Amino acid sequence: MLLHPEGVSVLYMTQLRIIFLGTGGSWPTVKRNVSSVAVKRGSEIILFDCGEGTQRQFQQSNLSYMQISKIFITHFHGDHFLGLPGLIQTMQLNDRDKPLHLYGPKGMEELTHQLLTLGYFRPSYRIISHEITDGEDIKFDGYNITALKVNHNVPALAYRLTESQRAGKFNKPKALKLGIPEGPLFSKLQKGQTVTLPSGEKITPDMILGPSRKGRTIVISGDTKPCEQIIDFSKDADILIHESTFDSKLQEIAREYGHTTASQAAEIAKKAKVEKLFLIHISPRYLDFHVLEEEARSVFAPSYVPRDFQEIEVKLKK
Amino acid sequence: MLLHPEGVSVLYMTQLRIIFLGTGGSWPTVKRNVSSVAVKRGSEIILFDCGEGTQRQFQQSNLSYMQISKIFITHFHGDHFLGLPGLIQTMQLNDRDKPLHLYGPKGMEELTHQLLTLGYFRPSYRIISHEITDGEDIKFDGYNITALKVNHNVPALAYRLTESQRAGKFNKPKALKLGIPEGPLFSKLQKGQTVTLPSGEKITPDMILGPSRKGRTIVISGDTKPCEQIIDFSKDADILIHESTFDSKLQEIAREYGHTTASQAAEIAKKAKVEKLFLIHISPRYLDFHVLEEEARSVFAPSYVPRDFQEIEVKLKK
Repeated sequence: MLLHPEGVSVLYMTQLRIIFLGTGGSWPTVKRNVSSVAVKRGSEIILFDCGEGTQRQFQQSNLSYMQISKIFITHFHGDHFLGLPGLIQTMQLNDRDKPLHLYGPKGMEELTHQLLTLGYFRPSYRIISHEITDGEDIKFDGYNITALKVNHNVPALAYRLTESQRAGKFNKPKALKLGIPEGPLFSKLQKGQTVTLPSGEKITPDMILGPSRKGRTIVISGDTKPCEQIIDFSKDADILIHESTFDSKLQEIAREYGHTTASQAAEIAKKAKVEKLFLIHISPRYLDFHVLEEEARSVFAPSYVPRDFQEIEVKLKK
Repeated sequence: MLLHPEGVSVLYMTQLRIIFLGTGGSWPTVKRNVSSVAVKRGSEIILFDCGEGTQRQFQQSNLSYMQISKIFITHFHGDHFLGLPGLIQTMQLNDRDKPLHLYGPKGMEELTHQLLTLGYFRPSYRIISHEITDGEDIKFDGYNITALKVNHNVPALAYRLTESQRAGKFNKPKALKLGIPEGPLFSKLQKGQTVTLPSGEKITPDMILGPSRKGRTIVISGDTKPCEQIIDFSKDADILIHESTFDSKLQEIAREYGHTTASQAAEIAKKAKVEKLFLIHISPRYLDFHVLEEEARSVFAPSYVPRDFQEIEVKLKK
């Protein structure tokens, strides 16, 4: 068991990375493919949206699509889901047998059926489609994913990935003082198990661990107009990935088509007190994305417009 | 009107180019996207197959997808058609109003219906789907496209584009001798019209033009095992674009999956006496495509494995 110098257990610090596979909106450009964000947590990849060409974006990144366990679709505009059939078929050609779970708003089951019966393709591994509704909270091993209805011109969901509470800080000096030998018992206590010392004394985790700590949180807006409810939904998130199709000069167009401007996204990030804001779904009209980044930063300093393939690590707070 | 030094009219030498947009088979790799070949004839683009990501391959080439008039699909495996919905939707977002014609084997109409009703998309311009059968010959302005049933593991067609017969060589010395003034009358004669000289004398085209000449021919095999009928179909073609998924070491696998090896494709090209052979639908396993090129060249010297975005011009013979 590794102990951080400050006594924080790092054994359960599952690595959490975000890889921006497609940061463009509406249609692809040479620089930006259409929507797809991969969240890699440990050895599992959770994909959010899957625009056309996502399988090839995987090829160009250092990720393996064979590690995808779940795909969440925000809404049923082509630039968010047309990469599904090709990705599913390629995984089959590469002998996938692990089931794949697809999640999306109402209509997901019908869409899945359509996508799995195009041409001569028929799936040979299990593909399970789930329709989820506003407020639904799905529990997985180590994290939850919660859905929020947002305000686009078709039914659309935002998603929040929240890691489960983590055990509190391991107080190594106290453990040694209580006579617990360094080794497997440390590990059991950290996992929340009560241990028995050679002396017969029972040690419960609360004797050694500090108060439990918050897991990491990532919010993905999908396509939406600025909406109040996303502020609460994103409260104190580590990462808010918000659409920002246009800059504020095009606010009217943004409103007409159900999108958000860079400064509007930054206002949301500021009110939600998130740590960092990443702007995606950039309109093909922006050859120079700095106009969006600068606009957002004037409202909320830690704002970024990621490039395709950019990776960030979401660090655990101590 | 421009006259070639040798007296050949170049006014009607419509430029004919082939742009290999996707030369890979089965699934995309970093280097090769899945199947799509663009034939640009004058200002019109005729697309053969449209694998996922084809719209982005257009973005990376110097072609405009807005110039596509017709798309021919060889068969309904995903790597040959999954780029259709995204391309169609992007043309709509870019205000296309020109109708688009889709052609394919039996099942094309149902597939088109499926592709046009995915998610919330509904087409705002006309998309006309045509099912074509073995031997069918479709006449267009200046060329025909003929279909041939080939031998894949699902129904599949090869296509041949044959330009119409061109007018014969314009005999300029003879025209001048007959007292035809250089200028618009030359042009009319070249177009096949009878003209009247200032003297009242009528000049018919056959008095000035040599025997009519063969147009250019391009054949695209689609996916197929080696098949006898493609030899006749490709007879004397300028360009044969044949699938060559594997090299001959993998001939058994090729046969099992309904594909052709490089040397088998070269044998066909040799028997058909085509001018040049281009091998596409290269399996993702070939990081070094030279093995295929060399194998083909040992049978038929003018064999090439094009890279994605490679362009060739099909020249008119004099």
